[in-house]
Amino acid sequence: MAERAVGVGEVARFDREVDVIVVGLGAAGAAAALEAAASGAETLVLERAGGGGGTSAMSGGVLYLGGGTALQKACGFEDTAEAMYDYLMASVGLAPDEPKIRLYCDGSVEHYDWVVAQGVPFKPVFYHGCSGEPPTDDGLVWSGSEQCHPYCDIARPAPRGHVPMMKHQTGPLLMRTLVAAVDASAAEVAANHRVQALVVASDGSVAGVIADHFGERLTLRARRGVVLTTGGFVHNDTMLEDHAPLAKRCNVRVGAEGDDGSGIRLGMAVGAATKHMDAVSISLPATDPWGLKRGVLVDARGQRFINEDAYYGSLGERALLHHDGRAWLIVDDAVFEKPTYERPVAAVGETPEELERELGLPEGSLSSTLALYNRHAEKGHDPVFAKHERYVTPLVKPPFGAFDCTTERSIYAAFTLGGLDTDTEGRVRDTDGDPIDGLFAAGRATSGVSVGGYSSGLSLGDGTFFGRRAGRIAAGS
Amino acid sequence: MAERAVGVGEVARFDREVDVIVVGLGAAGAAAALEAAASGAETLVLERAGGGGGTSAMSGGVLYLGGGTALQKACGFEDTAEAMYDYLMASVGLAPDEPKIRLYCDGSVEHYDWVVAQGVPFKPVFYHGCSGEPPTDDGLVWSGSEQCHPYCDIARPAPRGHVPMMKHQTGPLLMRTLVAAVDASAAEVAANHRVQALVVASDGSVAGVIADHFGERLTLRARRGVVLTTGGFVHNDTMLEDHAPLAKRCNVRVGAEGDDGSGIRLGMAVGAATKHMDAVSISLPATDPWGLKRGVLVDARGQRFINEDAYYGSLGERALLHHDGRAWLIVDDAVFEKPTYERPVAAVGETPEELERELGLPEGSLSSTLALYNRHAEKGHDPVFAKHERYVTPLVKPPFGAFDCTTERSIYAAFTLGGLDTDTEGRVRDTDGDPIDGLFAAGRATSGVSVGGYSSGLSLGDGTFFGRRAGRIAAGS
Repeated sequence: MAERAVGVGEVARFDREVDVIVVGLGAAGAAAALEAAASGAETLVLERAGGGGGTSAMSGGVLYLGGGTALQKACGFEDTAEAMYDYLMASVGLAPDEPKIRLYCDGSVEHYDWVVAQGVPFKPVFYHGCSGEPPTDDGLVWSGSEQCHPYCDIARPAPRGHVPMMKHQTGPLLMRTLVAAVDASAAEVAANHRVQALVVASDGSVAGVIADHFGERLTLRARRGVVLTTGGFVHNDTMLEDHAPLAKRCNVRVGAEGDDGSGIRLGMAVGAATKHMDAVSISLPATDPWGLKRGVLVDARGQRFINEDAYYGSLGERALLHHDGRAWLIVDDAVFEKPTYERPVAAVGETPEELERELGLPEGSLSSTLALYNRHAEKGHDPVFAKHERYVTPLVKPPFGAFDCTTERSIYAAFTLGGLDTDTEGRVRDTDGDPIDGLFAAGRATSGVSVGGYSSGLSLGDGTFFGRRAGRIAAGS
Repeated sequence: MAERAVGVGEVARFDREVDVIVVGLGAAGAAAALEAAASGAETLVLERAGGGGGTSAMSGGVLYLGGGTALQKACGFEDTAEAMYDYLMASVGLAPDEPKIRLYCDGSVEHYDWVVAQGVPFKPVFYHGCSGEPPTDDGLVWSGSEQCHPYCDIARPAPRGHVPMMKHQTGPLLMRTLVAAVDASAAEVAANHRVQALVVASDGSVAGVIADHFGERLTLRARRGVVLTTGGFVHNDTMLEDHAPLAKRCNVRVGAEGDDGSGIRLGMAVGAATKHMDAVSISLPATDPWGLKRGVLVDARGQRFINEDAYYGSLGERALLHHDGRAWLIVDDAVFEKPTYERPVAAVGETPEELERELGLPEGSLSSTLALYNRHAEKGHDPVFAKHERYVTPLVKPPFGAFDCTTERSIYAAFTLGGLDTDTEGRVRDTDGDPIDGLFAAGRATSGVSVGGYSSGLSLGDGTFFGRRAGRIAAGS
């Protein structure tokens, strides 16, 4: 599975020549191909699987968009590009890519219209009370931490999860529609073509690719550019070990088989830089239905570590990266209800002290935590972690229970966020920050809008948004 | 400052040809040069500064060695390669490089003798009670978390900080001696030579370098190999932002000016892989003198987050990476003493509640933490964080004080640990894990023995140890 660079001098002749080659047909690849073809470039899409779809087709299909999209307006929500920008800049990790976030927010309304124009349907109904994909075919949901501390004080909240109109996992519908649009376009799709090397001209620019098609080696020249839209690397254990070792402990790896980092390595082999390779989206869906946000999440010291109303992406990142994946959601009998995502009850006790013993936590630890929480909750607030008062209620009614949120017994769903370093036009940069001529990338093969503190829909969102730009620029328009 | 790859075809003629070129004359470069020259290879060392030394000469000069070195024996300590191996495997981060650690521990006794043979003096006296460099010229100290939970239960503790015989910072002595050894060897040192590109042959192997010498461009061929020993990237803000953004908040960046990642980028430009680029050593020297370990360290929630007897590297990593660099060391009047590393007192109070208010911590948070700590401390133990009982004593005597350990007002000393992916022989690997012919690296330009949970002396230790191996292998022996 060697991804290499091959000098153009080693290629005796090219089997074929086109303007733009797109590598991978997930959401980012479809967007790149559609725009490259629409720009008049002869476009060839190489997909290593038997057909398009990739990880995007396995996803919840949520697109994080805002700034006042037609869907937000139809559902009665106001939003601005500024509010979206402020939320993203504050929430997506320690080193947000400001230029990308600026463009993404400013272009979000137009981008929604483009997605709709490709034939993706959205039902103009807001679904309240879930985080991420709704159980209905409704079109708009909350899919981040917009309503929670500290973000609710930084930016006016609005729901920005745009969900195609299908019940449950809507990724297949999204991708069926986008792939159909590619098929109907002038772009050509070649399935079962696995790219093994980039071809490099003597000036360092990328001139084409070498692909394997059922054992046959094909040399393909790209007159204008190669666009890598190959996904992340959550299925590559060596790369996880080298860059994000904790992610290996997640029992759900969100990604098609092809998410083995091949495109990232193709880029690196020609001198591309990478960014934030340690960044991972880790989702811990522990607080659905929302009533469970009234519980308190504690670690192996019996201490709280986050406002429990934070989004799953924040819960998972905090629990795994900072508290060793050792977490329990503590509820009393009043708060108890059946979790949407099944998880075992780790222990039950008539008193906090008994629950603490049953969980094997240090004596006095959990009981002190609950005493402090209740002392403030009786006054309806949470000065320690600033959970929203709508979820603050004393936990006093026995029996007390602990839902198991450890990596061993709970869903932790992971995918990688780091990748090739690209500019806002999808140009891949070298280690000096200069674009490598002829090489573009988008989607999770790149470091994108989120490098932490994930909100659902940011990958399909930025993959399609910057995929379009990469396709257009590669085509030379 | 562009680090690039240049095809050998673009080099009209080489100004000079040698067997081995070593880039950078810190500890790793000196070790590589000495061994390459001793192997009979014509060896040229290119140093961008006016003379050798680099970051190593600015360091405390501690070498982390063990397994029963002559110095450990002279000081009356028993140690084994197994105990050292078990400690390192448990402490140096989430993805320890097992093959490197194995070799390093097995070869540590011989390596100490080699360092001594180069002329570096060590006084066979153990200095008790400090962490890292002693205030005397004594030779052996504790320089890690060996005696603390959980490591003391994993491996038999032994002091492994080997300190050259000079008062205070001993890095200058170490480097003066190693550079003198290089000068006395057959290796040639060329100062004020900055390498700007690696020269690559048509088969992808590294054939030499292009260097700048006061504006003159020199092409230098290396018949057998180029060894990159250029240090880390703590002085490159862009690279920190892209890989380890929190490190930018550290007010002490441990590194010579040359620690700008140039060698890492030279390697990447020819397709080298990197590992653990997010890993940073962050030292928070808050518990010297050791009596201060009897205090409790709390975060912005007033909660403890570590056993306070852990080594500075663990304190700093935990405080900055996991608790946002918001930390205070709480003491009572009995525990209070003047810290070795000056730091302001953030607040004083007659009661824990008053101290809590003065610090602006949430009501009841710090006082609950102290109540729980004292409840157990009265029985002489710490079941919550397992601090060693020798440092566990109730904090009950007013007034109470808080030493400021925030990033704003306390030393946080940082240097980078991630870098080029090398095998145990110092061969630089490409993104497929295959060695790039002709390219070697050692020291902090590479990902080494520690990728977290730092113990002092591991960088000088693994830099010289694997520098020697890289020099020998590059020389072809």
